[in-house]
Amino acid sequence: MSLRRLAASSRSHVPPFAVMDILARVEALRAAGRDVVSLCAGEPSGGAPDLVSAKAAQIHGSGLALSYTPALGTAELRTAIAGHYRRWYGLDVDPAQVAVTTGSSGAFMLGFLAAFEAGDRVALARPGYPAYRNILAALGCEVVEVDAGPDSRYQPTPAMLDAAASERGPLAGVVLASPANPTGTMVDREELTALADWCAAHDVRLVSDEIYHGITYPGSVADEHSPRGVCAWEVDREAIGISSFSKYWGMTGWRLGWMLLPEELVGAVDALAGNVALCPPAPSQLAAVEAFSVEAYAQADAWVAGYAKTRQTLLEALPALGWGPAAPADGAFYLYAELGDQLTRFGDSREYCRALLEAEGVALVPGTDFDAVHGWRAVRLSFAAGQEAVEKAIERILRFQGS
Amino acid sequence: MSLRRLAASSRSHVPPFAVMDILARVEALRAAGRDVVSLCAGEPSGGAPDLVSAKAAQIHGSGLALSYTPALGTAELRTAIAGHYRRWYGLDVDPAQVAVTTGSSGAFMLGFLAAFEAGDRVALARPGYPAYRNILAALGCEVVEVDAGPDSRYQPTPAMLDAAASERGPLAGVVLASPANPTGTMVDREELTALADWCAAHDVRLVSDEIYHGITYPGSVADEHSPRGVCAWEVDREAIGISSFSKYWGMTGWRLGWMLLPEELVGAVDALAGNVALCPPAPSQLAAVEAFSVEAYAQADAWVAGYAKTRQTLLEALPALGWGPAAPADGAFYLYAELGDQLTRFGDSREYCRALLEAEGVALVPGTDFDAVHGWRAVRLSFAAGQEAVEKAIERILRFQGS
Repeated sequence: MSLRRLAASSRSHVPPFAVMDILARVEALRAAGRDVVSLCAGEPSGGAPDLVSAKAAQIHGSGLALSYTPALGTAELRTAIAGHYRRWYGLDVDPAQVAVTTGSSGAFMLGFLAAFEAGDRVALARPGYPAYRNILAALGCEVVEVDAGPDSRYQPTPAMLDAAASERGPLAGVVLASPANPTGTMVDREELTALADWCAAHDVRLVSDEIYHGITYPGSVADEHSPRGVCAWEVDREAIGISSFSKYWGMTGWRLGWMLLPEELVGAVDALAGNVALCPPAPSQLAAVEAFSVEAYAQADAWVAGYAKTRQTLLEALPALGWGPAAPADGAFYLYAELGDQLTRFGDSREYCRALLEAEGVALVPGTDFDAVHGWRAVRLSFAAGQEAVEKAIERILRFQGS
Repeated sequence: MSLRRLAASSRSHVPPFAVMDILARVEALRAAGRDVVSLCAGEPSGGAPDLVSAKAAQIHGSGLALSYTPALGTAELRTAIAGHYRRWYGLDVDPAQVAVTTGSSGAFMLGFLAAFEAGDRVALARPGYPAYRNILAALGCEVVEVDAGPDSRYQPTPAMLDAAASERGPLAGVVLASPANPTGTMVDREELTALADWCAAHDVRLVSDEIYHGITYPGSVADEHSPRGVCAWEVDREAIGISSFSKYWGMTGWRLGWMLLPEELVGAVDALAGNVALCPPAPSQLAAVEAFSVEAYAQADAWVAGYAKTRQTLLEALPALGWGPAAPADGAFYLYAELGDQLTRFGDSREYCRALLEAEGVALVPGTDFDAVHGWRAVRLSFAAGQEAVEKAIERILRFQGS
């Protein structure tokens, strides 16, 4: 037996997330009998729409052999997804340009591989979802973080992209998320158009993360013309549009998402997918067709109404919490807020989160996981945990801060 | 709207597979009412073990919310997989070194990312499963194909690796597949040890594809000491061992596999998996625990006994078919054979396969999909399609060749 120790590759040196330590501590506290309220997870707790679960149960109960599907998904599901774009956005989408993927994670991997060379510069907003930059870095792309704060509602602007390109060199891509994680902020139609125009003028590929579409709130940026969010393909058919069954339909563990692909990328993604993934999970694909039923939409919309109520509770508690500024939370189920005076007491959000968890059993994610520069001032709170959890958390946080 | 057409990246230029054209033609012929026997697919047709399907039906029927699991899989499944190594190989495996993945595809992606830098040279046998080289190339690795023919039973040897390293430069990795796709050939314990020793002596990471373990045949290389195949960890704990629920348990569409990871790669793969995939499909993970039940093993073993019978039928037909040399088909469910005199008539295996499909409705995969150099002489036939399909195919092929 060899005694050598081959090292892991440099590209696998992904920065550790604070939330992993917190989740481990949550488990330990719960195992020790503590009542912990976790507002960490970016996922609904209620599960899939009833019709989707029933369909899955029926498929498995029937003993149907679940074989490989085509690499880009079953024809039935691709057609159903195309229909969803007609229903929500009034868009005609050719099912041949829909690629079903293993969660939106699979879409990012395949989309980035197909669109970008190693060495390409890709811009994205900071704060942002850390997996974008970690996947891009693992694929050898140069990640260009754009500092997007309260002034632009935490979203990138053409002026910021100009500045980034002149500082770092020409960009090959821009990743946009609306609603965004961790801030929940959205771009409106005018802003999205300006970003798409900037991309077109600079031969840059826009990658639009739309996985939180449908989880939007009255009075926010989602207006009567785009109540579900504005889809990138409404303004730019050269964009890659990425979505998922995980959030609006509450199907995180099912690992199913999709991409809208410009014509010139379909062949590349098909070939890559056949090698890299073979196909998305077959039972999830067969059952997910039911997500586009009237009943499933109605059920998901009822969950969104629930998030809206919880969001309202939280926004109303902000003055008492003394946090701010807070991102406007146009959509998704996150509140991203600076900690205000609490920073004086705790120094930074990691210490605040650690102390809050120990003292009161409330788990939040420190902003450092989303923003290595300014995140020490902020926390992300997921209100997908539900009304009761959030009310209990507010009460405990107030007690913690007053102690 | 922009008129620009951004091109796909150079790394997404995956060579097209002949089998894709053949599968499309199979569909077209069937749609036109033709009775087609397809021996293309590398998958069993019977579906998962009954207890696995029943468990999945029960999970979905219960309305349990299927949330994200830990990135490396549920503790229960990782422990069950470790137990499988004790049962089949007498090996102690720490569940902490088991990473559950989204099919073996997910394991190859994560394992290659974690083990190899961009620019690293990785050797593999030709003929071989094309996804290895296509994933490695997409990740910027230099693929070093080693010409492995009948003399080494289509497997690489230390001498071949020496030659490859002296011609191309030092290697960082070797991918071994036993049983292999497309040939079905296996390495025995002595050969595996020699390859692992070579890797240890040259600071090379061995990646061992063991997804066909358990599908082995009496009288083949799988002897009484290693009836399921020899596992790389029996001789080298620095190797990455990759396996899957797809083949032995017939769960292709479920997209579930796993990796055995050397200690120094566990953290890297955990971090990468959390970013690249989030987690493997949750319902598949929850149900797959039943794959390790006495009943599921017995059911899978009965399928293997069925493959053995079909393999025998096929081997006995070889003289009449006039094909050869044929790989010994120690395991898996493939016969890989040169076409003999038929090459004189048809020129190459692609034309042979095309003509056979049109004339007699039998679909095979030309060897060119597995071997760009010598594959024009060979075909791969999957006998997972079952006894009846293979008997019908032989009859039709004999008629075709005699016509």
